[in-house]
Amino acid sequence: MGNGYREMWKSLGLDLDAHDQLLQALPPTYGEVYLSQQDRPAAMEYFDFVINEIHGLRIQELQEHKASGGKVVGTFCVFVPEEIIRAAGGICIGLCSGIDMGAAQAEKVLPRNICPLIKSFMGFKLAKVCPYFESCDMVVGETTCDGKKKAFEILNDYVPVHVMETPQMKRERDMVLWREEIGDLVTGVEALTGGDVTADSLRQAIKEVNGKRRALLRLAELRKNNPSPISGKDGLLIEQIAMYDDVERFTLKVNELCDELEIRLKEGKGAHKPGAPRIIVTGTPMAVPNWKVAHIIESSGAIIVAEELCTGLRYFANTVPENGENIEEMLDLLGKRYLNINCACFTPNQGRMEDLLRLAEEYKADGIIHCSLTFCDPYAVEANRVEKILREKGIPLLKIETDYGQEDSGQLKTRIEAFLELIG
Amino acid sequence: MGNGYREMWKSLGLDLDAHDQLLQALPPTYGEVYLSQQDRPAAMEYFDFVINEIHGLRIQELQEHKASGGKVVGTFCVFVPEEIIRAAGGICIGLCSGIDMGAAQAEKVLPRNICPLIKSFMGFKLAKVCPYFESCDMVVGETTCDGKKKAFEILNDYVPVHVMETPQMKRERDMVLWREEIGDLVTGVEALTGGDVTADSLRQAIKEVNGKRRALLRLAELRKNNPSPISGKDGLLIEQIAMYDDVERFTLKVNELCDELEIRLKEGKGAHKPGAPRIIVTGTPMAVPNWKVAHIIESSGAIIVAEELCTGLRYFANTVPENGENIEEMLDLLGKRYLNINCACFTPNQGRMEDLLRLAEEYKADGIIHCSLTFCDPYAVEANRVEKILREKGIPLLKIETDYGQEDSGQLKTRIEAFLELIG
Ligand code: SF4
Ligand code: SF4
Ligand code: SF4
Ligand code: SF4
Repeated sequence: MGNGYREMWKSLGLDLDAHDQLLQALPPTYGEVYLSQQDRPAAMEYFDFVINEIHGLRIQELQEHKASGGKVVGTFCVFVPEEIIRAAGGICIGLCSGIDMGAAQAEKVLPRNICPLIKSFMGFKLAKVCPYFESCDMVVGETTCDGKKKAFEILNDYVPVHVMETPQMKRERDMVLWREEIGDLVTGVEALTGGDVTADSLRQAIKEVNGKRRALLRLAELRKNNPSPISGKDGLLIEQIAMYDDVERFTLKVNELCDELEIRLKEGKGAHKPGAPRIIVTGTPMAVPNWKVAHIIESSGAIIVAEELCTGLRYFANTVPENGENIEEMLDLLGKRYLNINCACFTPNQGRMEDLLRLAEEYKADGIIHCSLTFCDPYAVEANRVEKILREKGIPLLKIETDYGQEDSGQLKTRIEAFLELIG
Repeated sequence: MGNGYREMWKSLGLDLDAHDQLLQALPPTYGEVYLSQQDRPAAMEYFDFVINEIHGLRIQELQEHKASGGKVVGTFCVFVPEEIIRAAGGICIGLCSGIDMGAAQAEKVLPRNICPLIKSFMGFKLAKVCPYFESCDMVVGETTCDGKKKAFEILNDYVPVHVMETPQMKRERDMVLWREEIGDLVTGVEALTGGDVTADSLRQAIKEVNGKRRALLRLAELRKNNPSPISGKDGLLIEQIAMYDDVERFTLKVNELCDELEIRLKEGKGAHKPGAPRIIVTGTPMAVPNWKVAHIIESSGAIIVAEELCTGLRYFANTVPENGENIEEMLDLLGKRYLNINCACFTPNQGRMEDLLRLAEEYKADGIIHCSLTFCDPYAVEANRVEKILREKGIPLLKIETDYGQEDSGQLKTRIEAFLELIG
């Protein structure tokens, strides 16, 4: 990324020295993890470009949007309905942070033993290194897990946070509560942007975001083939970029990639050696630039065919029905679609168990790797339920707990290789 | 405790060897922490007796209740309305476990990095060492924190668990949800006990439990005096015993103690040296036999005057209004009383901040010690909010994070002594 953006970063109030360090951390990792892959689809060029311009072009777009009176809203969870933000004229940016920068700052306000994702976003904010975060006029938080729920109270000292109460079960009474939360989000976002969420703007936003989800699902479906036409690392990258890229351009580019992959499939071209073990990754989100486990899995000779993650299928497996007749109906349908997400914050979360069994079959997986971020109670405890059901069905499982550091890479590689050998 | 109870323990399915180890761990601790205190009120004899008979007499009472067709219901949180269990003819037992037994077993189903209280209850169940747990026909869980919420799914493999969804905010819509949960608890408990929750039985239960809470509040009020007539350790012990003792006997005994303390106060007798720093302890519950921090504080020369804990004021500061005319009204009032508890599971939890400021003034505290169990995100993160408000008001605060082990005792003592010196 050129230095032409320095003025923009400065105007955003970034700590330029700290930001330089962050930028320097990224390119070597990306080269090693991504650019070293053989014979990648040509259409991946766009996504490489996006990463290369991660703090450049896209930030410039956000600044232009803001210069013409637009607002930017940050989120940390796939439960926050981006359609509403879009319908009110805002741009929604998924801020889930995937690198340990600013940990020292974060630990001034947070306990040391907390999920690295939470520590990361707090560190980003306090250290002023993330131009996305600094572009946000508001953050929409949620009450999905204890750590985030409570950290948002602190974050609110630094940026306005609107918290949605996500329910913990999925019964009618929970839907009622959630539906009211959705109504409040409409009000809150309208107050921020000054734009109205109308039946027309919401219908349009639902259509566009559905388009994005359908493109991602089309890509996912192509990975059911054997050989899979694209690496899991590339799949994950695209799912990560989905969180902050321009919706329409991104949709177009994913569909272009799918066109290319269809041709490759006809030519019998795969992204991996024949017979590579097919792996599904499940667990906590893997936010940019957290590619650690995916990289270890695939450089150990396996191919990841699906991500049962929020940076993955949980984000796009379901769309919002487009037949809502008026705004209330549309918000009802939207609410239902979102409450269908099978996050470990629900109790029980039987839907995730069913998803895993179904995905294992549909994607012809040889094994599942359950990967949770350290100190994440919802997923770490639910791993026991996943283990139970997969054992009953004879599906091999490896459970991993890891953070954003590289200290455990060697040990993870050993465990993953042993697992692949076992199921190979 | 005599060996006369071995047959009973055996019939409960306890692992007798493991249980012996547990019993052996308790008496020396108790002697050191409690019986070594000088000139204790005579009425403490009853509470010493209860601890001495902790796995004996009270368990026998539960067995007799069960033999005549009664049911025993275990709970892990002060949000579960014991009045309802009582009104349906059940006995409610607070199971919050305060010792690290069975950790190895617990770690077979739980992640290692989890709050010791959760690990303890799971360990107790899997290792079959707790006669209270083994007496329970049902457990009522709640969704207050991630760890418990998800651990109850696993616990349900071993004992029937009825989970109440506790809301995460305190608005009208949360009250609506909570009220429905209360209705479900009535149904669930009635199905278990076969008894009906009627207006009469509920009115009676509310009155009795209010009586218990009032006695505890009377005791708390006496501790506002300088000198305080009773040690904080003894206060905590009584608050812990409140969770599982017979309601009417316990109420009587606490009131007898208060009568004695009033006389002592008139005689100018205090439980500590004049000028000892007055401390309020706040944070996560301290379940029997977790006396570690209280013991360190008081053996360092301070006096604990109040516990802003669930084993403390959060349990008894509020009663249920007794003027409900019919069962629906009574359940409404009950629901409201419970939703008033200021647990860190709520966001925001401003009420706790106000409580702390008020308590500091009313109890003339010289300092506050915030004590949270390791890996407890709700309290560990909220500690930052506590710190912020106390700093604004110039009230000294010490933040501690600890578990059930004794390894950090030396370090804690050093930190606590330094804090006391600072505020002394
Ligand atoms: S794992 Fe749960 S809390 Fe995290 S982003 Fe996904 S839905 Fe949200
Ligand atoms: S990974 Fe787990 S602990 Fe971390 S933010 Fe997501 S749900 Fe919360
Ligand atoms: S601290 Fe909160 S979750 Fe724990 S017992 Fe108290 S009210 Fe329940
Ligand atoms: S101490 Fe904290 S983590 Fe442990 S059970 Fe209570 S609220 Fe949950």
